[in-house]
Amino acid sequence: MAVGEFPFPNMHAIPGFKLGIASAGIKRPGRKDVVVMEAVAGSEVVGVFTTNAFCAAPVTVCKERLAQGLPRVFVTNTGNANACTGESGLANAKKVCAEVARIMSVEEADVLPFSTGVIGEPLPTAKIMPVLADAVANLDESNWQDAATGIMTTDTRPKGATESFVHQGETIYVSGIAKGSGMIKPNMATMLGYVATNAKVKRDVLQSLLTDATNKSFNRITVDGDTSTNDSGILVATGKTHLPEITEARGEYFEKLSAAVISVHEQLAKAIVTDGEGATKFVTVNVTGGANSDEPLKVAYAVAHSPLIKTALFASDPNWGRIVAAIGYAGVENLDASKVRVRLGGVLIVENGGRAASYTEEQGQAVMNQSSITIDIDLARGNFADRVWTTDLSHDYVTINADYRS
Amino acid sequence: MAVGEFPFPNMHAIPGFKLGIASAGIKRPGRKDVVVMEAVAGSEVVGVFTTNAFCAAPVTVCKERLAQGLPRVFVTNTGNANACTGESGLANAKKVCAEVARIMSVEEADVLPFSTGVIGEPLPTAKIMPVLADAVANLDESNWQDAATGIMTTDTRPKGATESFVHQGETIYVSGIAKGSGMIKPNMATMLGYVATNAKVKRDVLQSLLTDATNKSFNRITVDGDTSTNDSGILVATGKTHLPEITEARGEYFEKLSAAVISVHEQLAKAIVTDGEGATKFVTVNVTGGANSDEPLKVAYAVAHSPLIKTALFASDPNWGRIVAAIGYAGVENLDASKVRVRLGGVLIVENGGRAASYTEEQGQAVMNQSSITIDIDLARGNFADRVWTTDLSHDYVTINADYRS
Repeated sequence: MAVGEFPFPNMHAIPGFKLGIASAGIKRPGRKDVVVMEAVAGSEVVGVFTTNAFCAAPVTVCKERLAQGLPRVFVTNTGNANACTGESGLANAKKVCAEVARIMSVEEADVLPFSTGVIGEPLPTAKIMPVLADAVANLDESNWQDAATGIMTTDTRPKGATESFVHQGETIYVSGIAKGSGMIKPNMATMLGYVATNAKVKRDVLQSLLTDATNKSFNRITVDGDTSTNDSGILVATGKTHLPEITEARGEYFEKLSAAVISVHEQLAKAIVTDGEGATKFVTVNVTGGANSDEPLKVAYAVAHSPLIKTALFASDPNWGRIVAAIGYAGVENLDASKVRVRLGGVLIVENGGRAASYTEEQGQAVMNQSSITIDIDLARGNFADRVWTTDLSHDYVTINADYRS
Repeated sequence: MAVGEFPFPNMHAIPGFKLGIASAGIKRPGRKDVVVMEAVAGSEVVGVFTTNAFCAAPVTVCKERLAQGLPRVFVTNTGNANACTGESGLANAKKVCAEVARIMSVEEADVLPFSTGVIGEPLPTAKIMPVLADAVANLDESNWQDAATGIMTTDTRPKGATESFVHQGETIYVSGIAKGSGMIKPNMATMLGYVATNAKVKRDVLQSLLTDATNKSFNRITVDGDTSTNDSGILVATGKTHLPEITEARGEYFEKLSAAVISVHEQLAKAIVTDGEGATKFVTVNVTGGANSDEPLKVAYAVAHSPLIKTALFASDPNWGRIVAAIGYAGVENLDASKVRVRLGGVLIVENGGRAASYTEEQGQAVMNQSSITIDIDLARGNFADRVWTTDLSHDYVTINADYRS
């Protein structure tokens, strides 16, 4: 199940960035489950990765190679996360990279590995290795939708977003794909994201741009509160433009690029949430009035993670008492409950420590019947705000996750 | 649904403590939903209460009256939590207490109110007031099971526990009842507990005993991670014994009483978890090897709250990768994943950062097929340990919570 319609967009090709797919049949025969991407030599590449202490072998390899060199080829498999696989997992990740490097005649350290799927099983290199040449042979700037499909696991639809803008007569493109529908939570969660632009950007500017965009998107979504071992987000700048290099995080050109990169990330993050496992509702939790930057996020996550609220959302039940209870246990010190205001779809439901006098159950029910719902919470303590996107908790969530390995 | 069989025990009466029930038909006509309890004059009474900032009106009244006087009558209603009801909620709670006080000819401040049920609806005093005299007329030392039934909401069975011990030829009894099956989490969650003993205990000793017992029981259970607005635990010492007053938290007599009080609390806590909404499994998460007292609790709760682990438990799927992922994101700083060991039902499944060489899926499956499962996690960082009890996440959990108000 998924919320709403998200037709795959007509993606802008990114000059200097190619994608190719192949089928290794890791979980199911014939399934396209191996994707190779190549950024042209001279591209800048930066990444952000999971904070999970049990990070997967490919994440470890990615971090090492990004710290030491200038990798520009990405090989992704689905069906197996190569996580919690110890030393042999690292060896397997490197083995796959080495084979891609051999086929493409690049250095092994130029190749970054990505895996998503079941944790704790050995990477089936015997299935993956033979089809890598197929993926390389398939490399093309137009393959965005195929690649978005190739990186899916429990996703029900491929996820892509694309933007463009004109600066000094030149067009700059930003395109990206992502996968993820379960285990989604703060700090990214079985989420793989690949975003590329033809702008030329200095490495440290590109890194801060990715970090900022990630904090506004993938780090503000949650389906089930579980942070995965494999989350990875990559941002590539191929430099295939006549415009000069962006060397500082300011100025009109940078601002335009930043807006486009953030927009692509936000669209991908929303696409992940609306495709959340079993999701029937898309929920935005806006918290304002925090005394510091932590408070709004704590409250937003307490609400977004509450199974009681999520099941009420699934039932389209305007059970605002559960929202208020979650605000109350979010850990905001000395919260004055009598000052908190809660709105559901713009309708004031809580003030003065109880139900708003103007509120009627019919108003709440009308909001709850919608598939996209906004919960606004004003803590009335200060000027800090934050926002989290999440879903409801449905029978299908339980079914999907109880049956995933079988 | 509930895990295992928990027949209501043959409860020891507590000299000086009476219970009476009545039917106000708050949610359903004929349902026994009002309970009055009375401790004899001279009893010591202490309480512990929710930390939720949106605490309910009855909690506010309880705290005030316990701080100022020596209340010894307790009036409880189910079907309505009288939470998030603002000033009128406080007035309603006091109104009910005043009526009980009038009927029993005690001071209004001697009566403590307790409510559990739907949040945010006005307390239906018109239904409750007329039946209070029935509950008072019903007061009897033998009514433990009726009272345990009378405080139930979504509970599927009444919860009681009882202990006794002999000291210097005298028998001391400890009996208690509790309710709770959803919204259960750290710091108590729609949990009401009433435990009484005929020992004579100084107030500050009794308070520390209750706090200690609560931390080992109600504060170490979680069903869905939601902390309620109404959690309340009461411990009563009637002093109806020839033994002298316990004035210090030490000595053989105190140790015996402490063990009995903790045992009653632990049995009640387990009874709540096994009756968790939709529960099909009883799960103990033991964490050892923490570098400080926070680490084991953080890890235990990360595992106990993970919907991915809970759905795998429901499916009897030994998906240990999800356990490892939860350990990894629990927030233990600089955790060395290669040193962590995880056992499932005593079977070693994870070491050296991956699946233990000795582990087979059949072993894990055999453990998972049981209805009571222990997960042991050794962080190998120090000597601190903690333990949490929880349940799986089933379709019935979603059904119960999606339909609760309808």
